[in-house]
Amino acid sequence: MEKMCADEVPLTASSSEKQETVCIFGTGDFGKSLGFKMLQCGYSVVFGSRNPQVSSLLPRGAEVLSYSNAALKSDVIILAMRREHYEVLTELVDSLNGKILVDVSNNLKINQYPESNAEYLAQLVPGANVVKAFNTISAWALQSGTLDASRQVFVCGNDSKAKHRVMDIARTLGLTPLDQGSLVAANEIENYPLQLFPMWRLPFYLSSVLCVFFFVYCAIREVIYPYVNAKTDATFRLVISIPNRVFPITALTLLALVYLPGVLAAILQLYRGTKYSRFPNWLDHWMLCRKQLGLVALGFAFLHVIYTLVIPIRYYVRWRLKNGTITQVLANKDSPFSTSTAWLNDSYLALGILGFFLFLLLGITSLPSVSNMVNWREFRFVQSKLGYLTLILCTAHTLVYGGKRFLSPGILRWSLPSAYVLALIIPCSVLVMKFILIMPCIDKILMRIRQGWERNSQYSKSALNGKSDI
Amino acid sequence: MEKMCADEVPLTASSSEKQETVCIFGTGDFGKSLGFKMLQCGYSVVFGSRNPQVSSLLPRGAEVLSYSNAALKSDVIILAMRREHYEVLTELVDSLNGKILVDVSNNLKINQYPESNAEYLAQLVPGANVVKAFNTISAWALQSGTLDASRQVFVCGNDSKAKHRVMDIARTLGLTPLDQGSLVAANEIENYPLQLFPMWRLPFYLSSVLCVFFFVYCAIREVIYPYVNAKTDATFRLVISIPNRVFPITALTLLALVYLPGVLAAILQLYRGTKYSRFPNWLDHWMLCRKQLGLVALGFAFLHVIYTLVIPIRYYVRWRLKNGTITQVLANKDSPFSTSTAWLNDSYLALGILGFFLFLLLGITSLPSVSNMVNWREFRFVQSKLGYLTLILCTAHTLVYGGKRFLSPGILRWSLPSAYVLALIIPCSVLVMKFILIMPCIDKILMRIRQGWERNSQYSKSALNGKSDI
Amino acid sequence: MEKMCADEVPLTASSSEKQETVCIFGTGDFGKSLGFKMLQCGYSVVFGSRNPQVSSLLPRGAEVLSYSNAALKSDVIILAMRREHYEVLTELVDSLNGKILVDVSNNLKINQYPESNAEYLAQLVPGANVVKAFNTISAWALQSGTLDASRQVFVCGNDSKAKHRVMDIARTLGLTPLDQGSLVAANEIENYPLQLFPMWRLPFYLSSVLCVFFFVYCAIREVIYPYVNAKTDATFRLVISIPNRVFPITALTLLALVYLPGVLAAILQLYRGTKYSRFPNWLDHWMLCRKQLGLVALGFAFLHVIYTLVIPIRYYVRWRLKNGTITQVLANKDSPFSTSTAWLNDSYLALGILGFFLFLLLGITSLPSVSNMVNWREFRFVQSKLGYLTLILCTAHTLVYGGKRFLSPGILRWSLPSAYVLALIIPCSVLVMKFILIMPCIDKILMRIRQGWERNSQYSKSALNGKSDI
Repeated sequence: MEKMCADEVPLTASSSEKQETVCIFGTGDFGKSLGFKMLQCGYSVVFGSRNPQVSSLLPRGAEVLSYSNAALKSDVIILAMRREHYEVLTELVDSLNGKILVDVSNNLKINQYPESNAEYLAQLVPGANVVKAFNTISAWALQSGTLDASRQVFVCGNDSKAKHRVMDIARTLGLTPLDQGSLVAANEIENYPLQLFPMWRLPFYLSSVLCVFFFVYCAIREVIYPYVNAKTDATFRLVISIPNRVFPITALTLLALVYLPGVLAAILQLYRGTKYSRFPNWLDHWMLCRKQLGLVALGFAFLHVIYTLVIPIRYYVRWRLKNGTITQVLANKDSPFSTSTAWLNDSYLALGILGFFLFLLLGITSLPSVSNMVNWREFRFVQSKLGYLTLILCTAHTLVYGGKRFLSPGILRWSLPSAYVLALIIPCSVLVMKFILIMPCIDKILMRIRQGWERNSQYSKSALNGKSDI
Repeated sequence: MEKMCADEVPLTASSSEKQETVCIFGTGDFGKSLGFKMLQCGYSVVFGSRNPQVSSLLPRGAEVLSYSNAALKSDVIILAMRREHYEVLTELVDSLNGKILVDVSNNLKINQYPESNAEYLAQLVPGANVVKAFNTISAWALQSGTLDASRQVFVCGNDSKAKHRVMDIARTLGLTPLDQGSLVAANEIENYPLQLFPMWRLPFYLSSVLCVFFFVYCAIREVIYPYVNAKTDATFRLVISIPNRVFPITALTLLALVYLPGVLAAILQLYRGTKYSRFPNWLDHWMLCRKQLGLVALGFAFLHVIYTLVIPIRYYVRWRLKNGTITQVLANKDSPFSTSTAWLNDSYLALGILGFFLFLLLGITSLPSVSNMVNWREFRFVQSKLGYLTLILCTAHTLVYGGKRFLSPGILRWSLPSAYVLALIIPCSVLVMKFILIMPCIDKILMRIRQGWERNSQYSKSALNGKSDI
Repeated sequence: MEKMCADEVPLTASSSEKQETVCIFGTGDFGKSLGFKMLQCGYSVVFGSRNPQVSSLLPRGAEVLSYSNAALKSDVIILAMRREHYEVLTELVDSLNGKILVDVSNNLKINQYPESNAEYLAQLVPGANVVKAFNTISAWALQSGTLDASRQVFVCGNDSKAKHRVMDIARTLGLTPLDQGSLVAANEIENYPLQLFPMWRLPFYLSSVLCVFFFVYCAIREVIYPYVNAKTDATFRLVISIPNRVFPITALTLLALVYLPGVLAAILQLYRGTKYSRFPNWLDHWMLCRKQLGLVALGFAFLHVIYTLVIPIRYYVRWRLKNGTITQVLANKDSPFSTSTAWLNDSYLALGILGFFLFLLLGITSLPSVSNMVNWREFRFVQSKLGYLTLILCTAHTLVYGGKRFLSPGILRWSLPSAYVLALIIPCSVLVMKFILIMPCIDKILMRIRQGWERNSQYSKSALNGKSDI
């Protein structure tokens, strides 16, 4: 547990003399926290500071020296200072020669400077081996010992020995270093901590648009229409009744949109006769955020489930039930039990429950720790077979919900059909296209293309090549 | 994040000359993808191909040479070709001498060949150090950068230096190498990607059998019986009512089956008087898939919860409620409030809810990332103490559900008792046996056996030995 | 998958001669299991035993020798024996000189001995390099191959080479070694497996106290009061109705207590004018177990949701509904539909559902594997922004639930207000304080303090220092 490394007293006191020494330039918050953690994990730490005398509150057991003196103590120097302050290092170029300089800095905006901080540093101190690392780790997390957020340390640098040295340090601190290649990657690594869910953006905007559209659509049909036609105040429907139409529609549409790019890609491959030409960018991006799309859809499905289960508790529903009974008693009318209605009603509930259950399974298997335990065959089985089964069940749930009244003209208001009719368009199209694609004659061609066969390859030599290779 | 390493342009262009070179034989899909990923992560890549001229669409920055020329460039050669094509390497035996050959191949069927591909390769090129690796990684995942499924790379080989070299490469690519020992393990590693949830098979079959049996049983009692006796059409009960009997029964039985093997093992140890004789194979297998059994049980319990919560929305239930009220009004009968019924009804609901809640907790702690954070004492506390509490609560839920009508003869139809009565047999037996096992006199003997004491050991020297060792 | 390494036959038979040899002293349960695992993963294993002849049931492929002979075979010796038995090693001091001794022992109680077992060992055999490791791994897990609980191996030792050697072994066995520094850390490492959810203790006691208090409070108001006043037997309310008041109250209070320490810390920083003085210990501890507090709150919220959804199935509720209808029919009274009641009722349900949904999201992102995928900005966004939104929604849910009858005097019983009124005190206070803290004028000062600025620093040199450092 992390608690372990987070205890009060650094353990250096009684350690033997075999310790490695690391130097940290800068006594700011991050520098102090990193030094604290390193002392705990058995390093001896020397701080470099402009004003060694006034630096206060440094972790117990650390030494503070001037920059140049500190640089002599270790061949790994961690620069816990802002980029704006790097010029100070130009005076130390000689003492930094051959050292490993670890750039931990971040910027305030994405692509703030023309070149990354680490590359700028490498230009300033050409004799040193610059390694970018630790910029994704927070001072607070280091200090408190609870690394709840990412333990991943992205590392890049042009010298692989220097890089491995820094990765070893990260590992000793209980972090997970990930080699990102040469220093060119520093730009991306510096942008990473400034990102806010980049892969979730498309699903978020898409679902917002869908929600707003269907909310307005339903509000017109169910609030404005009765008000205009009969002066009925049905505004309270905006709170639960209408959201409970919007959420399932959004969920079903998003779920269908998870499987649409795969279908489009297959059609494109069939049309082009090869798998070796790149997909258009939009399709690539769409395919990469399918998981996020699916999880957003699951969220809406979950809301739909709770909104539905809450129905019998609602005042409106109870009132209507009570009033219905009273009216019937007073009218002395008989309402015989209809087996077909019971069948339809139960089927649509059961289909919805089973669909939601499979959907939850899909969500659980997309948890990183779970998906990391399964092999590719299992992952594909779950995400493709179970995924399509979910889509089929949820589409059937909506179809049976419509049931008898599906296209009865009475359901049109201002010639607008019920919202769920619109919701069925994309899922049904995806299912039909998929059904065509898995027909044996088409599936066979697709399989060959996916194994590297090309329809129009010159002399088909390359295809021959592909046959023995994997 | 994975996005990082998945970007458009390989970063080699500006890298320094200190890069390591890796050679890949074969320009198929997997070879290309692996080369692409390696370029991104800072390697320089040389492809070996039969027809270097026609190999198209290779990642930018990679060189393509003939096999023999490519082999000269690096001492690590990754063979991205099918086993059927390995004979080509016999011509290159000299240039492959002393090289590390990485076998990444997979087969189409489990145990397709008498020996594993890697061992076959080691026989073909006896001078090379063959290492099996990367066969669990998919080309698509390498190319797209999203390694959603397993990042685990199983590595085996007879030369530990070669193995460590390959493991370092895997680590650099952001994967998790796992040393599996000598090349004999290659067979298992090659079978791994072909497996489809091997540990889930027993729970799956078991629950299918239970479901089908109880479904038919309930259908006879609740659909066929009323039809034969009273010509009532109750077929709509097949959709929700009957599944909502089958699911909880299956869940409770499976949950009891999670704890049964532990009880059986304890009885066996008591009977044998030692813990050092192996359990029968079926018991071993059963014990290893307890987690999966429990998770399947949780799935059924979840379905039971939703099927139950959906009850008041059902047409049939609403119709009955309404009709009951109307009948009562017309008959002018009084139905006084029964506190004991309220107690029984509320207790059975509360027991079920609490049981399900603990069950969910058990499920959450069995997530790999959660169970990895707790120590053994905590894990055992949750899985054993909380587990038995769950079993007790769920059994009590079923018992109280039965309540007064438990063994009243009116409940028999064609002398078949209610299904839930059958469901109680295994859970109650497990609880009774466990109760006997934790009685102090028996528990003490069991503890001693589990700490290594043997009842019938010769001269009990070995037992003495065991006392000071752990 | 773990299954891989867990197979029947150790793979040594056919391995080459390049294997590393490891020596294990002690043939107890743990020693055997570890030896078995090591053989599987390609090591050759030599057991040291007092009575090499009688040691039975050792894994196939392992050798058994006397202590002194076994020690000659390897420079890594794993001591699988109890601390009480360590004196035996004093006779072997010469043969253990320069060896790596791995202490895997655990104690029965926390801080059982004045010094840790590993330090005691280091005193007994001063010439050896003692490394503490493997004490968190269970024999059963090693043997069965399913490492469901922690794979983390905490390693400490004064000699870093010896430590790295042991960490390599751990990695080869598929475990995750974590360097914990010098041998002083052994004490903590030995206490770790004896802990039982230390961070969950405060949340557990706190929620127990809250539950008991509110349970008694509600029981007085809803069971004892009607009994005393009207001799009504409402005891059945103890089962579902009252818990369904206690759970949401506890959940809301705990959720507010998650955000209270952050607010208090901000006030303390504002008051002190610096971030560099330590918080009081109770505040530190409180802040470190916020995640656990939140998860316990989520548990109670979940119970509240199910207890609420189950309402329409309850006998009591159905009886009341039926009776209400009948009474109304017989009285021939009209109950007109109240749009404002529908609004209030639906709003409070919708707020509760949305609050619970966000709460679930918070819970999911606190799963280790999920929180490990996000960067700090994203983690803070979720845990702070979404967290406060959850608190606001849940507080509003309770406020709207109160609705009109909030402070009507009729609601007082024995001058006790409804329980939910008490439940609102802490959440509302936290929200008000937070609202004050985020007002621009105060927020600006707080931001400067958190970036290292100090109000009363001498000459403010240190502050200046902090400006260029991070």
